[in-house]
Amino acid sequence: MGASKKNPQSGNYLYNPALLQNLDWESVRGYLNPFITNENPGEPWLLVRPLQLEDYDKGLLQILSQLTTVGNIPRSAFERQFWEMMKAGGYYVTVIEDTRDRKIIGAATLITEYKFIHDCGLRGRLEDVVVNNTYRGKQLGKLIVLTVSLLAKKLGCYKMSLDCKDPLIPFYKGIGYKIEPGNSNSMIIRYETPTASGGPS
Amino acid sequence: MGASKKNPQSGNYLYNPALLQNLDWESVRGYLNPFITNENPGEPWLLVRPLQLEDYDKGLLQILSQLTTVGNIPRSAFERQFWEMMKAGGYYVTVIEDTRDRKIIGAATLITEYKFIHDCGLRGRLEDVVVNNTYRGKQLGKLIVLTVSLLAKKLGCYKMSLDCKDPLIPFYKGIGYKIEPGNSNSMIIRYETPTASGGPS
Repeated sequence: MGASKKNPQSGNYLYNPALLQNLDWESVRGYLNPFITNENPGEPWLLVRPLQLEDYDKGLLQILSQLTTVGNIPRSAFERQFWEMMKAGGYYVTVIEDTRDRKIIGAATLITEYKFIHDCGLRGRLEDVVVNNTYRGKQLGKLIVLTVSLLAKKLGCYKMSLDCKDPLIPFYKGIGYKIEPGNSNSMIIRYETPTASGGPS
Repeated sequence: MGASKKNPQSGNYLYNPALLQNLDWESVRGYLNPFITNENPGEPWLLVRPLQLEDYDKGLLQILSQLTTVGNIPRSAFERQFWEMMKAGGYYVTVIEDTRDRKIIGAATLITEYKFIHDCGLRGRLEDVVVNNTYRGKQLGKLIVLTVSLLAKKLGCYKMSLDCKDPLIPFYKGIGYKIEPGNSNSMIIRYETPTASGGPS
Protein backbone atom coordinates (compact mmCIF):
# COMPACT_ATOMS: atom_id res chain seq x y z
CA MET A 1 0.00 0.00 0.00
CA GLY A 2 2.93 2.31 0.63
CA ALA A 3 3.82 2.45 -3.04
CA SER A 4 0.31 3.07 -4.29
CA LYS A 5 -0.15 5.66 -1.58
CA LYS A 6 2.77 7.66 -2.85
CA ASN A 7 1.81 7.24 -6.50
CA PRO A 8 -1.91 7.49 -6.82
CA GLN A 9 -2.91 6.46 -10.31
CA SER A 10 -5.98 5.65 -12.33
CA GLY A 11 -7.69 2.62 -10.92
CA ASN A 12 -6.92 3.18 -7.25
CA TYR A 13 -9.72 1.47 -5.39
CA LEU A 14 -10.55 2.09 -1.74
CA TYR A 15 -10.98 -1.67 -1.33
CA ASN A 16 -10.51 -4.81 -3.40
CA PRO A 17 -13.17 -4.94 -6.14
CA ALA A 18 -13.07 -8.75 -6.05
CA LEU A 19 -14.94 -8.55 -2.74
CA LEU A 20 -18.03 -7.54 -4.70
CA GLN A 21 -18.04 -10.76 -6.71
CA ASN A 22 -20.41 -13.61 -5.89
CA LEU A 23 -22.44 -11.86 -3.22
CA ASP A 24 -25.40 -13.86 -1.93
CA TRP A 25 -28.05 -12.24 -4.13
CA GLU A 26 -30.24 -15.34 -4.03
CA SER A 27 -30.97 -14.57 -0.36
CA VAL A 28 -32.55 -11.23 -1.33
CA ARG A 29 -34.08 -12.13 -4.68
CA GLY A 30 -37.59 -11.58 -3.29
CA TYR A 31 -36.89 -7.90 -2.67
CA LEU A 32 -36.17 -7.08 -6.32
CA ASN A 33 -38.47 -6.99 -9.31
CA PRO A 34 -37.02 -7.27 -11.86
CA PHE A 35 -34.08 -9.09 -10.31
CA ILE A 36 -30.87 -7.10 -10.53
CA THR A 37 -27.49 -7.47 -8.86
CA ASN A 38 -24.33 -5.44 -8.56
CA GLU A 39 -22.90 -7.51 -11.41
CA ASN A 40 -26.04 -7.11 -13.52
CA PRO A 41 -27.49 -3.77 -12.44
CA GLY A 42 -30.19 -3.61 -15.08
CA GLU A 43 -28.53 -1.31 -17.60
CA PRO A 44 -25.30 -2.11 -19.43
CA TRP A 45 -23.88 1.34 -18.73
CA LEU A 46 -24.23 1.12 -14.96
CA LEU A 47 -21.22 -0.01 -12.95
CA VAL A 48 -21.20 -0.83 -9.22
CA ARG A 49 -17.71 -0.67 -7.77
CA PRO A 50 -15.58 0.48 -4.84
CA LEU A 51 -14.79 4.18 -4.55
CA GLN A 52 -11.81 5.33 -6.59
CA LEU A 53 -9.54 8.29 -6.05
CA GLU A 54 -10.72 9.61 -9.42
CA ASP A 55 -14.29 9.91 -8.16
CA TYR A 56 -13.46 13.39 -6.94
CA ASP A 57 -13.77 14.33 -10.63
CA LYS A 58 -16.84 12.16 -11.22
CA GLY A 59 -19.21 14.01 -8.96
CA LEU A 60 -19.02 12.03 -5.73
CA LEU A 61 -19.16 15.12 -3.54
CA GLN A 62 -21.95 16.66 -5.61
CA ILE A 63 -24.12 13.62 -5.11
CA LEU A 64 -23.33 13.46 -1.39
CA SER A 65 -24.53 17.05 -1.16
CA GLN A 66 -28.03 15.75 -2.03
CA LEU A 67 -27.80 14.01 1.34
CA THR A 68 -26.39 16.59 3.72
CA THR A 69 -23.85 19.36 4.13
CA VAL A 70 -20.61 18.51 2.37
CA GLY A 71 -18.72 21.81 2.21
CA ASN A 72 -16.08 22.92 -0.25
CA ILE A 73 -13.62 20.08 -0.10
CA PRO A 74 -10.38 20.65 -2.02
CA ARG A 75 -8.90 17.70 -3.87
CA SER A 76 -6.05 17.44 -1.37
CA ALA A 77 -8.47 17.01 1.54
CA PHE A 78 -10.50 14.42 -0.36
CA GLU A 79 -7.37 12.44 -1.19
CA ARG A 80 -6.09 12.66 2.37
CA GLN A 81 -9.38 11.30 3.67
CA PHE A 82 -9.37 8.54 1.03
CA TRP A 83 -5.93 7.39 2.18
CA GLU A 84 -6.87 7.63 5.85
CA MET A 85 -9.83 5.35 5.16
CA MET A 86 -7.69 2.89 3.25
CA LYS A 87 -5.01 2.88 5.93
CA ALA A 88 -7.54 2.29 8.69
CA GLY A 89 -9.40 -0.40 6.78
CA GLY A 90 -13.05 -1.26 7.31
CA TYR A 91 -14.30 1.49 4.97
CA TYR A 92 -16.27 0.11 2.04
CA VAL A 93 -17.48 3.19 0.20
CA THR A 94 -19.30 1.82 -2.84
CA VAL A 95 -20.61 3.75 -5.82
CA ILE A 96 -22.74 3.37 -8.93
CA GLU A 97 -21.23 5.01 -12.00
CA ASP A 98 -23.06 5.88 -15.20
CA THR A 99 -20.23 5.03 -17.57
CA ARG A 100 -21.85 6.95 -20.43
CA ASP A 101 -20.80 10.25 -18.95
CA ARG A 102 -18.57 8.95 -16.16
CA LYS A 103 -20.72 10.33 -13.37
CA ILE A 104 -21.32 8.88 -9.92
CA ILE A 105 -25.07 8.49 -9.59
CA GLY A 106 -25.30 6.59 -6.33
CA ALA A 107 -23.29 5.72 -3.24
CA ALA A 108 -23.48 3.82 0.02
CA THR A 109 -20.90 2.98 2.64
CA LEU A 110 -20.36 -0.10 4.76
CA ILE A 111 -18.21 0.49 7.83
CA THR A 112 -17.05 -2.54 9.76
CA GLU A 113 -16.18 -2.38 13.45
CA TYR A 114 -14.10 -4.80 15.50
CA LYS A 115 -15.75 -5.94 18.71
CA PHE A 116 -14.73 -7.96 21.76
CA ILE A 117 -18.34 -9.02 22.29
CA HIS A 118 -19.81 -11.78 20.10
CA ASP A 119 -16.59 -13.81 20.05
CA CYS A 120 -14.49 -10.84 18.93
CA GLY A 121 -17.10 -10.27 16.26
CA LEU A 122 -17.39 -7.84 13.39
CA ARG A 123 -20.30 -5.42 13.17
CA GLY A 124 -21.41 -3.60 10.03
CA ARG A 125 -22.99 -0.18 9.62
CA LEU A 126 -24.71 1.37 6.66
CA GLU A 127 -23.87 5.02 6.10
CA ASP A 128 -24.34 7.84 3.63
CA VAL A 129 -26.77 6.29 1.17
CA VAL A 130 -27.73 8.43 -1.81
CA VAL A 131 -29.00 7.94 -5.34
CA ASN A 132 -29.29 10.74 -7.88
CA ASN A 133 -32.87 12.00 -8.06
CA THR A 134 -33.00 11.68 -11.82
CA TYR A 135 -32.33 7.93 -11.63
CA ARG A 136 -35.24 7.08 -9.34
CA GLY A 137 -37.47 4.13 -10.25
CA LYS A 138 -34.66 1.82 -11.30
CA GLN A 139 -34.27 0.11 -7.88
CA LEU A 140 -30.81 1.66 -7.60
CA GLY A 141 -31.39 2.55 -3.95
CA LYS A 142 -32.17 -1.08 -3.22
CA LEU A 143 -29.25 -2.15 -5.40
CA ILE A 144 -26.61 -0.09 -3.63
CA VAL A 145 -27.90 -0.81 -0.12
CA LEU A 146 -28.22 -4.54 -0.77
CA THR A 147 -24.76 -4.60 -2.31
CA VAL A 148 -23.07 -3.29 0.83
CA SER A 149 -25.39 -5.29 3.10
CA LEU A 150 -24.45 -8.51 1.29
CA LEU A 151 -20.82 -7.44 1.47
CA ALA A 152 -21.21 -7.17 5.26
CA LYS A 153 -22.60 -10.69 5.29
CA LYS A 154 -19.72 -11.95 3.14
CA LEU A 155 -17.19 -10.31 5.45
CA GLY A 156 -18.72 -12.19 8.40
CA CYS A 157 -20.57 -9.40 10.20
CA TYR A 158 -23.00 -10.71 12.80
CA LYS A 159 -25.18 -7.62 12.38
CA MET A 160 -25.69 -4.75 9.98
CA SER A 161 -27.33 -1.59 11.26
CA LEU A 162 -28.43 1.83 10.09
CA ASP A 163 -30.02 4.98 11.41
CA CYS A 164 -32.74 6.62 9.34
CA LYS A 165 -35.53 9.17 9.25
CA ASP A 166 -39.15 8.08 9.59
CA PRO A 167 -40.07 8.25 5.89
CA LEU A 168 -37.31 5.80 5.01
CA ILE A 169 -38.49 3.03 7.33
CA PRO A 170 -40.72 1.37 4.68
CA PHE A 171 -37.88 1.37 2.16
CA TYR A 172 -35.52 -0.41 4.54
CA LYS A 173 -38.24 -2.79 5.73
CA GLY A 174 -38.76 -3.67 2.09
CA ILE A 175 -35.23 -5.00 1.82
CA GLY A 176 -34.99 -6.91 5.07
CA TYR A 177 -34.11 -4.38 7.76
CA LYS A 178 -36.09 -4.58 10.98
CA ILE A 179 -37.03 -2.33 13.84
CA GLU A 180 -36.55 -4.38 16.98
CA PRO A 181 -39.32 -3.50 19.43
CA GLY A 182 -37.93 -1.64 22.40
CA ASN A 183 -34.43 -1.56 20.93
CA SER A 184 -34.48 0.83 18.02
CA ASN A 185 -33.60 4.25 19.40
CA SER A 186 -30.89 6.43 17.97
CA MET A 187 -29.77 9.36 20.13
CA ILE A 188 -27.18 12.04 19.45
CA ILE A 189 -25.21 14.98 20.69
CA ARG A 190 -24.07 17.55 18.12
CA TYR A 191 -20.85 19.43 18.75
CA GLU A 192 -19.71 22.72 17.36
CA THR A 193 -16.62 22.15 15.26
CA PRO A 194 -14.30 24.69 13.69
CA THR A 195 -14.63 23.15 10.21
CA ALA A 196 -18.22 21.96 10.10
CA SER A 197 -20.54 23.97 7.91
CA GLY A 198 -23.54 23.13 10.03
CA GLY A 199 -26.67 21.37 8.83
CA PRO A 200 -27.93 17.96 9.83
CA SER A 201 -26.63 14.62 8.63
CA MET B 1 3.92 1.30 17.12
CA GLY B 2 5.73 -1.45 15.26
CA ALA B 3 8.04 -2.11 18.19
CA SER B 4 5.35 -2.16 20.84
CA LYS B 5 3.27 -4.36 18.60
CA LYS B 6 5.97 -6.98 18.46
CA ASN B 7 6.78 -6.74 22.15
CA PRO B 8 3.61 -6.34 24.11
CA GLN B 9 4.46 -5.43 27.68
CA SER B 10 2.82 -4.18 30.84
CA GLY B 11 1.34 -0.77 30.28
CA ASN B 12 0.30 -1.21 26.66
CA TYR B 13 -2.56 1.18 26.12
CA LEU B 14 -4.99 0.95 23.22
CA TYR B 15 -4.71 4.72 22.84
CA ASN B 16 -2.70 7.55 24.34
CA PRO B 17 -3.83 8.14 27.96
CA ALA B 18 -2.92 11.81 27.63
CA LEU B 19 -6.01 12.24 25.46
CA LEU B 20 -8.10 11.84 28.61
CA GLN B 21 -6.53 14.87 30.25
CA ASN B 22 -8.32 18.21 30.38
CA LEU B 23 -11.63 17.11 28.93
CA ASP B 24 -14.32 19.79 28.94
CA TRP B 25 -16.05 18.70 32.14
CA GLU B 26 -17.31 22.22 32.82
CA SER B 27 -19.70 21.83 29.88
CA VAL B 28 -21.41 18.88 31.58
CA ARG B 29 -21.12 19.92 35.22
CA GLY B 30 -24.90 20.25 35.50
CA TYR B 31 -25.40 16.55 34.81
CA LEU B 32 -23.40 15.40 37.84
CA ASN B 33 -24.14 15.68 41.54
CA PRO B 34 -21.72 15.48 43.19
CA PHE B 35 -19.40 16.67 40.45
CA ILE B 36 -16.94 13.99 39.38
CA THR B 37 -14.62 13.68 36.41
CA ASN B 38 -12.43 10.99 34.88
CA GLU B 39 -9.50 12.55 36.73
CA ASN B 40 -11.44 12.74 40.00
CA PRO B 41 -13.93 9.89 39.82
CA GLY B 42 -15.20 10.21 43.37
CA GLU B 43 -13.20 7.46 45.04
CA PRO B 44 -9.40 7.41 45.27
CA TRP B 45 -9.24 3.78 44.20
CA LEU B 46 -11.10 4.27 40.94
CA LEU B 47 -9.07 4.79 37.78
CA VAL B 48 -10.47 5.80 34.37
CA ARG B 49 -8.06 4.92 31.59
CA PRO B 50 -7.71 3.47 28.07
CA LEU B 51 -7.98 -0.28 27.67
CA GLN B 52 -4.76 -2.18 28.31
CA LEU B 53 -3.65 -5.54 26.99
CA GLU B 54 -3.55 -6.74 30.60
CA ASP B 55 -7.26 -6.16 31.01
CA TYR B 56 -7.86 -9.66 29.74
CA ASP B 57 -6.76 -10.70 33.25
CA LYS B 58 -8.70 -7.94 34.97
CA GLY B 59 -12.17 -9.09 34.05
CA LEU B 60 -12.94 -7.04 30.96
CA LEU B 61 -14.69 -9.90 29.19
CA GLN B 62 -16.59 -10.88 32.33
CA ILE B 63 -18.02 -7.40 32.64
CA LEU B 64 -18.89 -7.23 28.95
CA SER B 65 -20.85 -10.44 29.44
CA GLN B 66 -23.24 -8.44 31.66
CA LEU B 67 -24.09 -6.61 28.43
CA THR B 68 -24.45 -9.31 25.80
CA THR B 69 -23.03 -12.56 24.49
CA VAL B 70 -19.25 -12.55 24.64
CA GLY B 71 -18.26 -16.18 24.14
CA ASN B 72 -15.16 -18.00 25.28
CA ILE B 73 -12.42 -15.77 23.95
CA PRO B 74 -8.90 -17.15 24.32
CA ARG B 75 -6.13 -14.72 25.21
CA SER B 76 -4.66 -14.98 21.73
CA ALA B 77 -7.93 -13.87 20.12
CA PHE B 78 -8.30 -10.99 22.57
CA GLU B 79 -4.78 -9.81 21.88
CA ARG B 80 -5.22 -10.12 18.12
CA GLN B 81 -8.36 -7.99 18.29
CA PHE B 82 -6.59 -5.45 20.53
CA TRP B 83 -3.81 -5.03 17.96
CA GLU B 84 -6.27 -4.88 15.07
CA MET B 85 -8.06 -2.03 16.84
CA MET B 86 -4.80 -0.22 17.52
CA LYS B 87 -3.60 -0.66 13.96
CA ALA B 88 -6.87 0.62 12.52
CA GLY B 89 -7.07 3.57 14.90
CA GLY B 90 -10.30 5.24 15.95
CA TYR B 91 -11.00 2.71 18.73
CA TYR B 92 -11.17 4.36 22.14
CA VAL B 93 -12.12 1.54 24.48
CA THR B 94 -12.13 3.11 27.94
CA VAL B 95 -12.43 1.39 31.29
CA ILE B 96 -12.88 2.06 34.99
CA GLU B 97 -10.61 -0.04 37.20
CA ASP B 98 -11.05 -0.64 40.89
CA THR B 99 -7.36 -0.58 41.80
CA ARG B 100 -7.98 -2.22 45.16
CA ASP B 101 -8.46 -5.60 43.55
CA ARG B 102 -7.40 -4.69 40.00
CA LYS B 103 -10.78 -5.40 38.48
CA ILE B 104 -12.45 -3.68 35.55
CA ILE B 105 -15.79 -2.43 36.83
CA GLY B 106 -16.97 -0.34 33.88
CA ALA B 107 -16.32 0.20 30.20
CA ALA B 108 -17.45 2.27 27.24
CA THR B 109 -16.12 2.63 23.73
CA LEU B 110 -15.86 5.62 21.43
CA ILE B 111 -15.43 4.72 17.79
CA THR B 112 -14.55 7.50 15.37
CA GLU B 113 -15.40 7.34 11.70
CA TYR B 114 -13.93 9.34 8.82
CA LYS B 115 -16.49 10.99 6.57
CA PHE B 116 -16.44 12.87 3.29
CA ILE B 117 -19.60 14.76 4.30
CA HIS B 118 -19.32 17.66 6.75
CA ASP B 119 -16.02 18.89 5.32
CA CYS B 120 -14.38 15.48 5.58
CA GLY B 121 -15.65 15.36 9.14
CA LEU B 122 -15.21 12.94 11.98
CA ARG B 123 -18.20 11.21 13.55
CA GLY B 124 -18.24 9.55 16.95
CA ARG B 125 -20.22 6.55 18.17
CA LEU B 126 -20.81 5.27 21.66
CA GLU B 127 -20.66 1.49 21.99
CA ASP B 128 -20.65 -1.27 24.57
CA VAL B 129 -21.37 0.65 27.75
CA VAL B 130 -21.43 -1.36 30.95
CA VAL B 131 -20.93 -0.78 34.66
CA ASN B 132 -20.73 -3.58 37.21
CA ASN B 133 -24.06 -3.99 38.98
CA THR B 134 -22.50 -3.86 42.41
CA TYR B 135 -21.15 -0.35 41.77
CA ARG B 136 -24.48 1.27 40.90
CA GLY B 137 -25.39 4.57 42.52
CA LYS B 138 -21.96 6.14 42.15
CA GLN B 139 -22.68 7.87 38.82
CA LEU B 140 -20.14 5.61 37.16
CA GLY B 141 -22.38 5.07 34.15
CA LYS B 142 -22.56 8.82 33.65
CA LEU B 143 -18.84 9.07 34.30
CA ILE B 144 -17.75 6.57 31.67
CA VAL B 145 -20.21 7.75 29.02
CA LEU B 146 -19.37 11.42 29.56
CA THR B 147 -15.67 10.62 29.47
CA VAL B 148 -15.82 9.12 25.98
CA SER B 149 -18.38 11.71 24.83
CA LEU B 150 -16.06 14.53 25.90
CA LEU B 151 -13.21 12.69 24.22
CA ALA B 152 -15.23 12.71 20.99
CA LYS B 153 -15.67 16.45 21.37
CA LYS B 154 -11.96 16.91 22.01
CA LEU B 155 -11.08 14.87 18.93
CA GLY B 156 -13.25 17.20 16.82
CA CYS B 157 -16.27 14.99 16.15
CA TYR B 158 -19.22 16.96 14.77
CA LYS B 159 -21.64 14.41 16.23
CA MET B 160 -21.71 11.62 18.77
CA SER B 161 -24.40 8.98 18.48
CA LEU B 162 -25.64 5.85 20.17
CA ASP B 163 -28.33 3.20 19.83
CA CYS B 164 -30.19 2.11 22.95
CA LYS B 165 -33.16 0.25 24.35
CA ASP B 166 -36.22 2.15 25.53
CA PRO B 167 -35.48 1.99 29.29
CA LEU B 168 -32.13 3.72 28.77
CA ILE B 169 -33.55 6.80 27.04
CA PRO B 170 -33.98 8.78 30.30
CA PHE B 171 -30.42 8.00 31.36
CA TYR B 172 -28.97 9.33 28.12
CA LYS B 173 -31.33 12.32 28.07
CA GLY B 174 -30.02 13.10 31.55
CA ILE B 175 -26.51 13.60 30.20
CA GLY B 176 -27.27 15.56 27.07
CA TYR B 177 -28.22 13.05 24.40
CA LYS B 178 -31.28 13.86 22.33
CA ILE B 179 -33.82 12.03 20.26
CA GLU B 180 -34.29 14.07 17.11
CA PRO B 181 -37.97 13.97 16.14
CA GLY B 182 -38.44 12.01 12.94
CA ASN B 183 -34.77 11.06 12.79
CA SER B 184 -34.10 8.60 15.56
CA ASN B 185 -34.69 5.15 14.11
CA SER B 186 -32.20 2.34 14.36
CA MET B 187 -32.81 -0.66 12.09
CA ILE B 188 -30.87 -3.88 11.74
CA ILE B 189 -30.32 -7.14 9.92
CA ARG B 190 -28.81 -10.01 11.87
CA TYR B 191 -26.69 -12.55 10.03
CA GLU B 192 -25.82 -16.09 10.96
CA THR B 193 -22.09 -16.33 11.48
CA PRO B 194 -19.96 -19.42 12.01
CA THR B 195 -18.39 -18.05 15.19
CA ALA B 196 -21.20 -16.10 16.80
CA SER B 197 -22.73 -17.63 19.91
CA GLY B 198 -26.10 -16.05 19.23
CA GLY B 199 -27.97 -13.70 21.52
CA PRO B 200 -28.72 -10.03 20.97
CA SER B 201 -26.39 -7.09 21.35
